[in-house]
Amino acid sequence: METRSENRCFGGVQGVYTHASNATGTDMTFGLFLPEEAKDGPVPVLWYLSGLTCTHENAMTKAGAQGWAAEQGIALVFPDTSPRGEGVADDEAFDLGQGAGFYVNATQDPWARHFRMWDYVAEELPALIGQTFAVDMDRQAITGHSMGGHGALTLAMGLPGRFRSVSAFSPICHPTRSDWGRKQFTAYLGPDEAAWASHDATLLMRDGGFDGPVLIDTGTDDQFGDLLKTEALAEAMAARRQDHALRMQRGYDHSYFFVSTFMEDHVSFHAEALYA
Amino acid sequence: METRSENRCFGGVQGVYTHASNATGTDMTFGLFLPEEAKDGPVPVLWYLSGLTCTHENAMTKAGAQGWAAEQGIALVFPDTSPRGEGVADDEAFDLGQGAGFYVNATQDPWARHFRMWDYVAEELPALIGQTFAVDMDRQAITGHSMGGHGALTLAMGLPGRFRSVSAFSPICHPTRSDWGRKQFTAYLGPDEAAWASHDATLLMRDGGFDGPVLIDTGTDDQFGDLLKTEALAEAMAARRQDHALRMQRGYDHSYFFVSTFMEDHVSFHAEALYA
Repeated sequence: METRSENRCFGGVQGVYTHASNATGTDMTFGLFLPEEAKDGPVPVLWYLSGLTCTHENAMTKAGAQGWAAEQGIALVFPDTSPRGEGVADDEAFDLGQGAGFYVNATQDPWARHFRMWDYVAEELPALIGQTFAVDMDRQAITGHSMGGHGALTLAMGLPGRFRSVSAFSPICHPTRSDWGRKQFTAYLGPDEAAWASHDATLLMRDGGFDGPVLIDTGTDDQFGDLLKTEALAEAMAARRQDHALRMQRGYDHSYFFVSTFMEDHVSFHAEALYA
Repeated sequence: METRSENRCFGGVQGVYTHASNATGTDMTFGLFLPEEAKDGPVPVLWYLSGLTCTHENAMTKAGAQGWAAEQGIALVFPDTSPRGEGVADDEAFDLGQGAGFYVNATQDPWARHFRMWDYVAEELPALIGQTFAVDMDRQAITGHSMGGHGALTLAMGLPGRFRSVSAFSPICHPTRSDWGRKQFTAYLGPDEAAWASHDATLLMRDGGFDGPVLIDTGTDDQFGDLLKTEALAEAMAARRQDHALRMQRGYDHSYFFVSTFMEDHVSFHAEALYA
């Protein structure tokens, strides 16, 4: 593992690291914020999964999460959103291929060889971080934005017992019924929709829900609102009486200006679960 | 108007008053909390509509609202839930007749003569309070519990411009599709369902929504959860991108122990709108 950078930040350290990934067969880069408390022993951790076109860097520099995480003594992990580099398949569209891994293990050519983001985020990266840093892997929570909100919700429900709480900013809620989902799942997973179900937050909510609290914020003026299908997840959460809060925030759009505005609430929400 | 009682309460006064109502053709009793600030001039007001079997008194004594309202300088109105007394129609069931007015103007016998709770709460009582007490009727907000949550939501959407914010505790959300609604609307309004639509929060949300923020809290362990149809309103609010927060609170039921737990949040929510 190579240290790309380490910067002092809110009394802790914001690091960027690159490692050879078995899951993706590529080098992968991630950001990790460790609060000051990590000097004294393992701290709880909040995963942040990013959206389309993002790298490990976007949320790390624009979401304003480190200040709130430092206040709560929580680590933050910022994974990349796909494998990258020469020899890695790609597409001209911004919403397929590099920067658009959708947190699935692709089974279809040309994606199957490297696009194994589920395994990377669910297995390989947690193992690496748990072995390398002062992070308590028994106290994990997860959040994300847009495609990363989809990832956070599907990982939280797909890995029962792993995460104590899940939140999302403007998540893709029902990808099997959205152009943000059907196109990518067809490409990565093939035309058999049965293979898609475990990557759809609304279907997972109907099927089993999440054994912990859920917080979702989406802007009323989200320019991609029609693609998110928030209403499907809203209905599914209320119907199964999921412990949750869904908030539609007046006037906010899909940007990091929205994410940063409500980051304090999300970090506090997770801190409550992580320190319960 | 007769003063039934006035008690010093959180620096202000909790009063109970009875007056002859033109709307219902009966004497009606209501509670009014005025904070200390009302001595110096009109204060904003939060309406609290109660649920099945309640009188003006239940929320007044069990919801714990006065302390938070005093802190914010807000008046509280607690109307009764139906006309009452000898000569007023009733039913053996707890969810029809006296104590179960559903905030509609009945058009069917034997209810039509006295059961005009919409007119009472929407027109007559606000006029009386505005004339009599130091309350600023240009700054109104509304909340309620269960049947009263239904009332709060339908009044808020049915009277555009009247209320700056609306909230509800475990509201009946879709009465035209629930046994808490179909029975009563048939009795009060007759079998033509077209007459029911303006008293269904989900249908009103689909039709036009609310021009202000909405806050809804419901317990995950609400013993009447199936009757509330929260999922229908959840979907409708998300689909129209209504400025809102819907929270399902883990382990809470339908009681005033639930209502009182989240009363501070609701009063703060309304204060933000009333002082904006």
